[in-house]
Amino acid sequence: MSIKAVVFDAYGTLYDIQSVAAVTEKAFPGYGEIITQIWRIKQLEYTWLRSLMRRYEDFSEITRDSLAYTLRCLGLKYDSAALERIMDKYLHLDLYPDATAALAAMRGRKLAILSNGSTGMLNALVANSGLDRVLDATISIDSAKIFKPSPDAYALIESTLHVPPAEVLFVSTNPWDACGAKAFGLNVAWIERVTPEAMRLACVKSDVVAPLTLFKAIRTQMDELGLEPDYRIHALSELPDLVAAHER
Amino acid sequence: MSIKAVVFDAYGTLYDIQSVAAVTEKAFPGYGEIITQIWRIKQLEYTWLRSLMRRYEDFSEITRDSLAYTLRCLGLKYDSAALERIMDKYLHLDLYPDATAALAAMRGRKLAILSNGSTGMLNALVANSGLDRVLDATISIDSAKIFKPSPDAYALIESTLHVPPAEVLFVSTNPWDACGAKAFGLNVAWIERVTPEAMRLACVKSDVVAPLTLFKAIRTQMDELGLEPDYRIHALSELPDLVAAHER
Repeated sequence: MSIKAVVFDAYGTLYDIQSVAAVTEKAFPGYGEIITQIWRIKQLEYTWLRSLMRRYEDFSEITRDSLAYTLRCLGLKYDSAALERIMDKYLHLDLYPDATAALAAMRGRKLAILSNGSTGMLNALVANSGLDRVLDATISIDSAKIFKPSPDAYALIESTLHVPPAEVLFVSTNPWDACGAKAFGLNVAWIERVTPEAMRLACVKSDVVAPLTLFKAIRTQMDELGLEPDYRIHALSELPDLVAAHER
Repeated sequence: MSIKAVVFDAYGTLYDIQSVAAVTEKAFPGYGEIITQIWRIKQLEYTWLRSLMRRYEDFSEITRDSLAYTLRCLGLKYDSAALERIMDKYLHLDLYPDATAALAAMRGRKLAILSNGSTGMLNALVANSGLDRVLDATISIDSAKIFKPSPDAYALIESTLHVPPAEVLFVSTNPWDACGAKAFGLNVAWIERVTPEAMRLACVKSDVVAPLTLFKAIRTQMDELGLEPDYRIHALSELPDLVAAHER
């Protein structure tokens, strides 16, 4: 079976969400990293909770709400201008360094993003980072009004690109997203950015743990959901060879 | 409108899930608290992810899987006997000290538990703690095969107790659960066990944060989901007066 389309998760996969830490640190010196970690944890939780509660709000609203939760929780005072300055970084996230070259090397296939991000956020992000020149489609779950890992979200790939799941390779760094895509029936490449050995070394026996370590412990290791990605890779740069080899 | 039934969440509301830390510490000295925190975070995540993926497994399976994730992540070796010893604590969790007296003081109403726990886990827990003598029903979401905060889970209260949502007071310490119950249309009392001031003091500006602090920052403060509980209380002992006052 050949791979006719390669579809990417956006946040954490093509775009480095940890790159917001510089902006949060500037706004709240000393708190940059912990804000970034709590914010991301709550942002994802709110997508799942609102999906289950059938109270969909788009990702820009959820991103703002989860940031407000984080700042309130930490007892940090802020005005709406400060909030919007931080939010704006979500439209200018850094690409992982190997993203552009990996996409360029696979131009023979349909290339797309399928993301929880709202249509507005994604279109701005893709344009600001220049990916609009290589992508065939930027698919927001907005039109399904439910977030990944609902099957309704992954179904948007076929309805948009007209490529059946068996001919799609879905690429994500987020373990829960890789599992959701696999449960739906897509071919899945999971990018393992933190190896088990690196994880173990970070979790040294200690009373205190850096916030980034606990975040990694929660979000970076393959989940126990009874599902396995088809491929485990360590960087986007491995994708062109993987896709070519899949056809042999 | 009178309150005809008072329905409680189990884990974290009537039962202190942090009481597993003594068992995890004994099994893995130095890691007791961090195991307990990561385990609980992943346990809840898995309920939401499996519900969204439409891959329901019961709570005992999810509890075992999330513990396995936690131990693997921390690089801790274990055998199945060690895993089962820790799991067994979930059938013998400590009641909060004011739980029994608060329930006894409301005996004129229907009293029940609505929990994500599996039927087997809940029945054992309730019997081991003596609550079977005061509860009219122990409702597991097992029969709906979807976890809270899905409306299908909260709907089990009416189908089991035959009391409509407007005459039920639902009590939970878990902010997402209080919001889910409110979204469904129940009267909701949220137990705020960690005040904003205590939270702020715990999050002192620092490079390192105790795992319990980050856990609290994620799970104890009222969420930004556009919903507000009807009552905020600080302990189960406040409930009898609250229920009586509701009728005046």
